[in-house]
Amino acid sequence: MSRLELIKEEIAGIAEYMPGKSIGDITRKYGLDPGSVIKLGSNENPLGPSPEAVNALIKHAQQSNIYPSANAYELVEALVDYTGFPAANIAASGPGMDGLIDGLVRLVIERRDEVILPTPTFSYYEIAARANGAVPVFVKRDKDFILDVEAIKQANSAHTKVIFLCSPNNPSGNVVTKKDVRSIAESTRGLVFVDEAYVEFADANLAELVRDYDNLIVGRTLSKAFGLAGLRIGYGIMPEWLKTEYMRAATPFNVSSAAIAAGVGAISDSLHLKKSIELVRNGRIYLKEHIPFKVYDSQANFVLVDIAPLKSRDVCEKLLQKGIIVRDCTSFRDAGESLIRVSVGTQEQNARVVKGFEEVKS
Amino acid sequence: MSRLELIKEEIAGIAEYMPGKSIGDITRKYGLDPGSVIKLGSNENPLGPSPEAVNALIKHAQQSNIYPSANAYELVEALVDYTGFPAANIAASGPGMDGLIDGLVRLVIERRDEVILPTPTFSYYEIAARANGAVPVFVKRDKDFILDVEAIKQANSAHTKVIFLCSPNNPSGNVVTKKDVRSIAESTRGLVFVDEAYVEFADANLAELVRDYDNLIVGRTLSKAFGLAGLRIGYGIMPEWLKTEYMRAATPFNVSSAAIAAGVGAISDSLHLKKSIELVRNGRIYLKEHIPFKVYDSQANFVLVDIAPLKSRDVCEKLLQKGIIVRDCTSFRDAGESLIRVSVGTQEQNARVVKGFEEVKS
Repeated sequence: MSRLELIKEEIAGIAEYMPGKSIGDITRKYGLDPGSVIKLGSNENPLGPSPEAVNALIKHAQQSNIYPSANAYELVEALVDYTGFPAANIAASGPGMDGLIDGLVRLVIERRDEVILPTPTFSYYEIAARANGAVPVFVKRDKDFILDVEAIKQANSAHTKVIFLCSPNNPSGNVVTKKDVRSIAESTRGLVFVDEAYVEFADANLAELVRDYDNLIVGRTLSKAFGLAGLRIGYGIMPEWLKTEYMRAATPFNVSSAAIAAGVGAISDSLHLKKSIELVRNGRIYLKEHIPFKVYDSQANFVLVDIAPLKSRDVCEKLLQKGIIVRDCTSFRDAGESLIRVSVGTQEQNARVVKGFEEVKS
Repeated sequence: MSRLELIKEEIAGIAEYMPGKSIGDITRKYGLDPGSVIKLGSNENPLGPSPEAVNALIKHAQQSNIYPSANAYELVEALVDYTGFPAANIAASGPGMDGLIDGLVRLVIERRDEVILPTPTFSYYEIAARANGAVPVFVKRDKDFILDVEAIKQANSAHTKVIFLCSPNNPSGNVVTKKDVRSIAESTRGLVFVDEAYVEFADANLAELVRDYDNLIVGRTLSKAFGLAGLRIGYGIMPEWLKTEYMRAATPFNVSSAAIAAGVGAISDSLHLKKSIELVRNGRIYLKEHIPFKVYDSQANFVLVDIAPLKSRDVCEKLLQKGIIVRDCTSFRDAGESLIRVSVGTQEQNARVVKGFEEVKS
């Protein structure tokens, strides 16, 4: 028996989330030695977590029976130093930035409200929108994945509650300009959420715009440059009035005490951050130069490869058989069937993925 | 500037969540030595986390740069062993059981749907309901905090989407009977959510009823008997059809990799669990016998004390000055102004809280 009539109709529209494959998935499926598999499908930090974060986790483990602070104030304090914004503008979130998105969307969405998504982009925005009863409005980026600002403005309506802009964009790696963010923020009554998950790898960030607009939020994560994907830590920089409302409805204790400890440790380790960024910046140049297909310019810790006329599904399968995990982008709406996202790894891993693409091509 | 007109009107109805006070809060406020403060306000495990969980956390720390499995399957496998239910009936959740509640509520609530809350009870149900646009319908428990089943049935309407039953109930410590759960589950078209956060300390649990009803969910946590409050791990036992729908809209990776590792470790340590339960069972008898006020029978790891005609606010303040943190229940709807919840601690802590109450009384 089931009671499907209880489930909101919007839920049926949610496509299954397709996470990147794990090393365990691949070793089980292909009988490979785990040590021989490289994972370049989830944009993780190939240098591992900061030693400061590891030390903090170990030191903290014994106190895991104690609840964290309800608002993760220790982490917020560290983020005040890191971002230059006061605590009144910063909310820490878990699980990851997804938790921030969940919390913001449920603040403002009423049924049939609209959310604008410039595709292809990170798929969780659509899940969060639908799960809260919103109607996603898709505005396709151009062939180089640049935002179509005019089309976004035309899609904006009295029902638009959130416009999601990912910069650098997942999976294309290009950034949104300040001018475009300003133009969009000024044209809508709704919120504009700028997802800067990958911003540490980019030439500039957009956070300062939060000071100028009462409807602009910048979302961040400690999963990428800070190397803490496993701990699911995000944060938002937002206008003070919005933080007050957000905190009122946020799930208490949504950042674990382990995550707070590790996050504070990671933020204190500017050397590890610097090394991580350098590795990525050098690696993405190498990948662009050596992968024998079209590779888009990227400001993130991944590059997007177009292997047309081959199919990404087939190529990813062949790479998997060689123990190389990359991301088939067919699960990204409007990404077509020939795009593959490759995380920047260590130089050794980058060389292996280049070799893999060369073998697939020949 | 603010744009409060964007915020759903239901959000304004959410009272600020009042977490239990931390040792840091108290030492800052009263200038006490942290080592002298005892925290019996948040129902944490006074024996600390399982050594197996601590070992797992330490062993795992180095891999914090890697995303967890999207559905926490390693933890679900451990829960299959622990609960006796197949994986098709179990969803792991973070942050804590609150994450499970968030996910379920947003599956079914449309604006102005109703959620039935037997008060006084855990306050997060109301936050989750309002944040998702629901109207909470409060049904007061009787003077001994026993459910008023007939009143719940009368409150049940065509708009009722969830009925929350907390067993053992927070803050009263008494359980709901199987007969009452059956009767309520059979009388509603909506979901019945039985919160068993404290069930390991009770004489019996209600999970087997999930096999009999297509609308019954049992929520659990690893924060209490398993001693992992800091890691925010919950899980639900639910009908298979509902797990499928739940997973479709759940936030991916909502259980951190540290939480998965620690959770699997804690579940494997049945000795620590047994010791934790014994400590609580003996401690609550001691507290009931020695606290010089009315103490309700409890099946949880806390006892509820009625200090009428004194006011709980005043008494808690006096105890805080002595370095004893307990929970003033005035923030629980319909709990009145004379109830204090006291977590069971170590024997030494229990003796101190008894002495504190004696001094307050005289």
